[in-house]
Amino acid sequence: MASVRETFRVPQGPVDLTAIDPRGRPTGPKDRAAAAKAVTELGTRLDAGQEALYAEGAGGGTRSVLLVLQGMDTSGKGGVISHAVGLVNPQGVQIASFKKPTAEERRHDFLWRIRKQLPGAGRIGVFDRSHYEDVLVVRVEELVPTDVWQARYGEIREFEAELAAQGVTIAKVMLHISPEEQAERLLARLDDPHKRWKYNPGDLDARARWDDYQEAYATALELCDSDAAPWYVVPSDRKWYRNWAVAAILAETLDEMAPAFPEPDFDVAAERTRLLRSTNPSS
Amino acid sequence: MASVRETFRVPQGPVDLTAIDPRGRPTGPKDRAAAAKAVTELGTRLDAGQEALYAEGAGGGTRSVLLVLQGMDTSGKGGVISHAVGLVNPQGVQIASFKKPTAEERRHDFLWRIRKQLPGAGRIGVFDRSHYEDVLVVRVEELVPTDVWQARYGEIREFEAELAAQGVTIAKVMLHISPEEQAERLLARLDDPHKRWKYNPGDLDARARWDDYQEAYATALELCDSDAAPWYVVPSDRKWYRNWAVAAILAETLDEMAPAFPEPDFDVAAERTRLLRSTNPSS
Repeated sequence: MASVRETFRVPQGPVDLTAIDPRGRPTGPKDRAAAAKAVTELGTRLDAGQEALYAEGAGGGTRSVLLVLQGMDTSGKGGVISHAVGLVNPQGVQIASFKKPTAEERRHDFLWRIRKQLPGAGRIGVFDRSHYEDVLVVRVEELVPTDVWQARYGEIREFEAELAAQGVTIAKVMLHISPEEQAERLLARLDDPHKRWKYNPGDLDARARWDDYQEAYATALELCDSDAAPWYVVPSDRKWYRNWAVAAILAETLDEMAPAFPEPDFDVAAERTRLLRSTNPSS
Repeated sequence: MASVRETFRVPQGPVDLTAIDPRGRPTGPKDRAAAAKAVTELGTRLDAGQEALYAEGAGGGTRSVLLVLQGMDTSGKGGVISHAVGLVNPQGVQIASFKKPTAEERRHDFLWRIRKQLPGAGRIGVFDRSHYEDVLVVRVEELVPTDVWQARYGEIREFEAELAAQGVTIAKVMLHISPEEQAERLLARLDDPHKRWKYNPGDLDARARWDDYQEAYATALELCDSDAAPWYVVPSDRKWYRNWAVAAILAETLDEMAPAFPEPDFDVAAERTRLLRSTNPSS
């Protein structure tokens, strides 16, 4: 059976996002109850993997994980962070959200603010949006000249290859939703006073250019997918399926890394003796 | 009935930590099963409170929470972060661990590195160790002259009052364990290859000075407890009780803040109409 990552990996060559069903369930649980059970099991696997990675880092290891989350508004980047990333010990996680760049950030290369947020050794970094915005919104809204954003695909490939060589295991996930599902979610945001703060009138401007965004995504997926920095497309119209899929991709990624608990740099038997002699120091 | 925070709040006046039983259960669940049930309920409350605080911050609010965790080695600062802080959406949490200061940090005032890690608006900041190390290990190990650490109690009081005035709701928790329990936990770390990386031979040096540390804690608790920055002492020999207690303190803290979802700064009805007209932009 194909692994979860193989199933969701973007196919080689030109990418046709209309051929991927946002309500599809190509592998894994078929309903919400099965997903809940699978996610509980994934939580245990993720916890174990995260702790070993953290320990490896504490012992001098330099490896880390970088999970990049991209998707149209309401596709569930925040939901994935709460329900999939939230399965692991928050001490081992570094989350960075990339919003509209500040004036200072715009004065630097587009990767400048990204480099500052890379995960430390032993950590799982999560990017809520990322350097891909610089070939998505920036391309669709023509915020820079064409030759500038066109050059970025190569710059991103080089950047990610450099990270991989430094021990960063990268997994990039596009949360793939349909425009119909987005309409329902935006409506739910408008109608629920507890969700209204997430709504931004600008979301409708991006929505109006849906096809342009899908085209920009397709180009980024095609040009920036590699074995060192793979792109996954996760059908995300069903939230429970989306959360399961990202948790499973992360768990497989950690499993394959097989992080190792470090060997002690002290004499265990001698410390045991010292400890037993020390018992109850205050009596 | 006294609130959870009232129960755990350090009593006014000179503090006698030997009068607080590290295995005590002065309120709340009496066994592990009851605690598991209570923690699930707290998770729902914490989630709601955290989301409202985050939304308040997104809407221009400036309030935040700062949870300070202190305790002897093995007292469970990491366990609390995993099992109590881990109940809330990691996107709203900022965790900072304060280890031995770097050379650069030592060239600055002891609060310099602390200020850099304060939570942003709408966030829950968690300090795994804190500025209190500068009146704990620094006092016990005489790392600075006496008059320097003695002046720090007042400096900490001023610092925390300043934070409170800026909208930071502070809760400081000492995880209170017995030396017998510490010996068991250190032994478990030595005997389990998956826990050995957490063991540090220096832990036994601190353990040898147990009474000096307890005295330093007692002074810090007495001199730096205030209504604006309260200290809580949580019996922590039972891990399930400790995790429940910190989750309950955090939930009560958020409940009392009563964060408010912001009012929309756009015309909801007009956006609703725009949205419904926009449905299915790609068809």
